[in-house]
Amino acid sequence: MNPVLDGIAPSIIRAIAARKRPGDIDLGMGEPTLRPDPRPFDAATAWVRTHGLPYTANAGLTELRARIAAYVGLPDRAAAENAVVTIGSEEALYLALKAAIDAARDEVLIVEPCYLAYPKLCALEGIRHRMVAMDPADGFRPSAARVLDALGPDTRMIVLNTPNNPTGRVWPAAELRMLADGLAARPGPPVRVLSDEVYRELYYTPEPPVSIGALWPHALVAGSLSKSNALTGLRLGWLVGDVKTISAATKVHQLVNTAASTFSQVVAMEILADAENLSAHRAHYAGRRALVGGWMRAHGLEYAPIEGAFYCMVRLPERWAADSLGAAEALLERHRVLATPGVAFGPSGEGWMRLSWVAEVDALRVGIERIAELFAAEG
Amino acid sequence: MNPVLDGIAPSIIRAIAARKRPGDIDLGMGEPTLRPDPRPFDAATAWVRTHGLPYTANAGLTELRARIAAYVGLPDRAAAENAVVTIGSEEALYLALKAAIDAARDEVLIVEPCYLAYPKLCALEGIRHRMVAMDPADGFRPSAARVLDALGPDTRMIVLNTPNNPTGRVWPAAELRMLADGLAARPGPPVRVLSDEVYRELYYTPEPPVSIGALWPHALVAGSLSKSNALTGLRLGWLVGDVKTISAATKVHQLVNTAASTFSQVVAMEILADAENLSAHRAHYAGRRALVGGWMRAHGLEYAPIEGAFYCMVRLPERWAADSLGAAEALLERHRVLATPGVAFGPSGEGWMRLSWVAEVDALRVGIERIAELFAAEG
Repeated sequence: MNPVLDGIAPSIIRAIAARKRPGDIDLGMGEPTLRPDPRPFDAATAWVRTHGLPYTANAGLTELRARIAAYVGLPDRAAAENAVVTIGSEEALYLALKAAIDAARDEVLIVEPCYLAYPKLCALEGIRHRMVAMDPADGFRPSAARVLDALGPDTRMIVLNTPNNPTGRVWPAAELRMLADGLAARPGPPVRVLSDEVYRELYYTPEPPVSIGALWPHALVAGSLSKSNALTGLRLGWLVGDVKTISAATKVHQLVNTAASTFSQVVAMEILADAENLSAHRAHYAGRRALVGGWMRAHGLEYAPIEGAFYCMVRLPERWAADSLGAAEALLERHRVLATPGVAFGPSGEGWMRLSWVAEVDALRVGIERIAELFAAEG
Repeated sequence: MNPVLDGIAPSIIRAIAARKRPGDIDLGMGEPTLRPDPRPFDAATAWVRTHGLPYTANAGLTELRARIAAYVGLPDRAAAENAVVTIGSEEALYLALKAAIDAARDEVLIVEPCYLAYPKLCALEGIRHRMVAMDPADGFRPSAARVLDALGPDTRMIVLNTPNNPTGRVWPAAELRMLADGLAARPGPPVRVLSDEVYRELYYTPEPPVSIGALWPHALVAGSLSKSNALTGLRLGWLVGDVKTISAATKVHQLVNTAASTFSQVVAMEILADAENLSAHRAHYAGRRALVGGWMRAHGLEYAPIEGAFYCMVRLPERWAADSLGAAEALLERHRVLATPGVAFGPSGEGWMRLSWVAEVDALRVGIERIAELFAAEG
């Protein structure tokens, strides 16, 4: 057996979620509860009747790659050849690491708190990696200075996520500019930035999130239709970047799974025919966010500003400042509410708890009430 | 960049196929030309209307895993937990190598001629590997003795493919029994066998092909709906084996792409509801095979017995005994027929040419005529 696998810890998120009982309120899951538009599926089924269901080229349908690249819209990297169609954004992350990193000498720097697939993928590939924390005392505000300070001599890639899971923060344009300028000023080979933008359409800031790819030519952007269109099960994502890296990523993609589902690609063609289709769910989430924020404030709960995605990081009472797992267990056992301990997203998440607010309104309201109750009893 | 990628040669199959011009006869492609049954797609689209399209568990829908494991039918390994749903059989091969092999010390032995993804996946993962050739003089007949003789002290996995691409041969039950007995008699840790059975339903022998998995507990079986049901674009396959290895494979699968398309899994549930659905195309291929065999004999072409899959290995005239690429180029340039040089499948394929006989009947007839013409002129 591959001994590396033993060293990769199982997901805390899944471990705690597995303890949920029927009737418990679920604020743990990171998946939209909205229903997707079924019309692209009708269109794709009609397509199968006409064309069958052959393989596409390894990198995907050329027209889909063109639509994706145009949608992501990176300067000088907006042509079909700048995009590879992947099995969700998860595979895009894997391909970027596998293709762009030389495990024998390169190091990857991961901005946390974050989705722990980033360090686990590095571990799977034998890639040396370190984490750099955003400041909990500052509500996990994205900070270019913290990232630039953490660069080492062998760092060849930074992994960041905006809008962020679990913090809900969005990297401000000014911080991204500072990051790009800092990287440009650095001697030696360029440091790539792998930007996970899977929550790109779910933002509540006045302006849409800026991509580091707009400011830094050595950026790779991962995305998918999973969150914007409630299509996690479509497994349709992308990696966009410079042609050389996308070609190398496509070579890996060809070997590990040949190509993404042709059916999923045809569904994506329908959706990407009009970029408005990707923002259709934003108003729903904005409304939900306003409710959640109101309830949190009414109960005096401290939380990081929610600028994007569909999560909220709540600060735990002092009693659990070093035991977010204990807090999540108490909440589940005593109050029957599932939430995710902050430590599941990296060391700086300790002392916090992530709520996912995709649940129904009543469940959310009651869930937040019960959290406040627990905190009041134990705070 | 990952320096390993530079060492992986581009596909000869694709390189020659890229030179095809409009109007050329295509006997190169390895993909069914039949149309798939559209009804499972209607059912899956109705399913999306009711359920949306959430993620499944990483290993796939439990009921689908159960149906796959029952269909593959390995003794003591026929439960849901013995199967992981993959992105086609290609990902199943990748997962088996990635999960089961310790690249620091294990060696993989690959039976050729074969689909060259096997050695390329080993190269991608830094896994030491060797090839063992079946005998061209014996029509590439599968031989347990050849495989057993080639085992080395570090060999921990044998990769074989039955029915075989490109040879069309099927491993006889007696040879598989000899292989299993030989492996059982060997001291030291057991040698796994990764059996690629993607052409399992396309056989023209009196009895269905036997799986090494029926005879050897350390077998891993890869398969998919791509060839049996003309659904290459569904990207729906599986790896079946012992629970420990399947769990490890699922851990890799979770990290590299989360799960297979839920839509594709629902389509597969429909198809696997009745195993008869997987053999629906066999009669079509059997009829086509009879025609092809008749034309080959009529033109005096020498070819390996076609026992399965939809390929035929034709022996080249002496002039091209060491230059199958030259023969394929001459055929394409002078006679406008695309076929694949045998060397694209390993050293023992040199001096042969692979025809894929999924094309329309007229194209096949004319293509074989032109091959005979070329051979007569140059033989």
